[in-house]
Amino acid sequence: MQLLQQTIDRIQGIDRQMEEKARTYINSLAKPPQSLGKLESLALQIATITGDLAPKIDNKAVIVMAADHGVYEEGVTPNPQSTTVFQTLSFPKGTTGMCTIAKISNAQVIPVDIGVKEDLPQDAGVIIKKVKYGTDNMAKGPAMTREEAIQAIEVGIEVATESIQNGINLIGTGEMGIGNTTPSAAVLSVLHGCDPLAVTGFGAGVGAGGIEYKAEVIRKVIALNEPNAEDPIDVVAKVGGLEICGMAGIFLAAAANRVPVVVDGYISTVSALIASKLNPNVKAYLIPSHLSEEPGAKIAAELLGLEPMLHMNMRLGEGSGAALAFPILDAACSMITNMVTLEEAAALLVTK
Amino acid sequence: MQLLQQTIDRIQGIDRQMEEKARTYINSLAKPPQSLGKLESLALQIATITGDLAPKIDNKAVIVMAADHGVYEEGVTPNPQSTTVFQTLSFPKGTTGMCTIAKISNAQVIPVDIGVKEDLPQDAGVIIKKVKYGTDNMAKGPAMTREEAIQAIEVGIEVATESIQNGINLIGTGEMGIGNTTPSAAVLSVLHGCDPLAVTGFGAGVGAGGIEYKAEVIRKVIALNEPNAEDPIDVVAKVGGLEICGMAGIFLAAAANRVPVVVDGYISTVSALIASKLNPNVKAYLIPSHLSEEPGAKIAAELLGLEPMLHMNMRLGEGSGAALAFPILDAACSMITNMVTLEEAAALLVTK
Repeated sequence: MQLLQQTIDRIQGIDRQMEEKARTYINSLAKPPQSLGKLESLALQIATITGDLAPKIDNKAVIVMAADHGVYEEGVTPNPQSTTVFQTLSFPKGTTGMCTIAKISNAQVIPVDIGVKEDLPQDAGVIIKKVKYGTDNMAKGPAMTREEAIQAIEVGIEVATESIQNGINLIGTGEMGIGNTTPSAAVLSVLHGCDPLAVTGFGAGVGAGGIEYKAEVIRKVIALNEPNAEDPIDVVAKVGGLEICGMAGIFLAAAANRVPVVVDGYISTVSALIASKLNPNVKAYLIPSHLSEEPGAKIAAELLGLEPMLHMNMRLGEGSGAALAFPILDAACSMITNMVTLEEAAALLVTK
Repeated sequence: MQLLQQTIDRIQGIDRQMEEKARTYINSLAKPPQSLGKLESLALQIATITGDLAPKIDNKAVIVMAADHGVYEEGVTPNPQSTTVFQTLSFPKGTTGMCTIAKISNAQVIPVDIGVKEDLPQDAGVIIKKVKYGTDNMAKGPAMTREEAIQAIEVGIEVATESIQNGINLIGTGEMGIGNTTPSAAVLSVLHGCDPLAVTGFGAGVGAGGIEYKAEVIRKVIALNEPNAEDPIDVVAKVGGLEICGMAGIFLAAAANRVPVVVDGYISTVSALIASKLNPNVKAYLIPSHLSEEPGAKIAAELLGLEPMLHMNMRLGEGSGAALAFPILDAACSMITNMVTLEEAAALLVTK
């Protein structure tokens, strides 16, 4: 609890003076004003966060939080639960979908066992920070205790802080956890105050009962556990997941350390929402990526004021959308770093 | 004319057998089916075009066609016409917005003077293939003759073919020409059969008369020149532009040589439409990039069946959207090349 509170307290709002300086500089570049659209706003945001008009994001990582879900027992997904272990062990090999995307930006992939159901080998290249062997079945009681939720958020803080200390200057959030669109929808429907059906989608595959059944399970879960919508930790403990907590910790640590952090798809956006409820200043450090196919993803992004720029119809998870946004951010940084100002361009032409 | 006809005749439809092979392979990769959305369709398209399940697009170029427009006299844009020369000479220096984006993919930038109003220095790093010193004012007569339009298309074919012979395996299309959203809107409204206002936008800045005035100029231009909507070369000669012709040539040459070619924003998409009218098989080689802010861009993309994946609110031109799509295509190729199949993944896990 101490680490969590300290981290929340350390997060500062944006440096308005730096923001103004960066905005003025971007407006002086040799192009029609605002003609590079979101590339300009991304450059503005990264320059402001880093305090640098030639920002460096040359040491990237996707941190992947992996965990299992007790609610799997309710048949919300047709995928075998063993896929969580399977894929978690695949990240160090670089063979998953996200890994092949991260490769194009030379981004590290840092998988973390925060709550996989089985014990993983110590030498598999996965950071073992297991809080518990998957959540409990929230259709029968809370997914975890408040203490476990805080512990999981602190795992995220620890791993992100350590990676930043090791030189990582851009973080993407990723997750692996069969069944995890169910707790994501549960958390979002509580925080947003809407019926679960509005934020429930296909996930990586929906069980025999379809989306209606999945939403009904979530309704039952919420009615049973009575999470307090005003207390984000209560919500994520009762109807969330360990990886959702872990990613919330990543967002908090990135913001506390003034490192830009890329939000992936649905599960990641819900985590960012949790983090922003713990300290609204977090929002200034969040960078959007892709618009997931999940209906709840759009709602969660809107609540955070994020406008995903990649429309790829992706719904793989793992942090694949975040990794795909990395080169877009490189382009934004290249623009602000390498473009000439109108004044410089004029001078260059005269001296030619 | 001979080169144009030969090129049109060489363009073949997609290899359906290769496409089926690539689709089957992509479906066998270790992920939920279709969960990588457009990344899968891009990989499918590039693998099919190149005939390679591990396609290489490691030698990229943005070819930028630069030209001026006689219709500038009508006050359709507030930007100084000298900007065309200014920016064309900036491309070899790598300082324009698009150049800084191309840099992240190590893409070459190949600027071509296809019709700039002034003579450029021979040693400025710009390929000089000037067809004429800008188009004539189409508000007073045709923009150019049919022969000039064909010559301009053939310039595009020549430059693209030469770059392919030099090893370029992915081409992005770009343009520079103050006033060129006006002929783009004129060409599109004729081909689509709609009122110019529906496809007229802000461009890089609109003149004092606003968008209404710009559309009225285009109405007048079309009424005066009476382009034949069934004859794309007649349309682009009478109400088009030299760079629009040049880019149409790039699309034709890329398709004829089975090289994927990335469509940029509004002007580029209109050029692609011209090329696809000359041979509908061109469409199979076109890769979308960003959705330009120009209202006509969306209409032109829909006519071609293209779904731009980058929603960046950009309207710079130059090929900036095409260059920004390059790393997305790298990700698509990395996915199909480096992901394991479900079968391989299972075997890896067993042998661990």
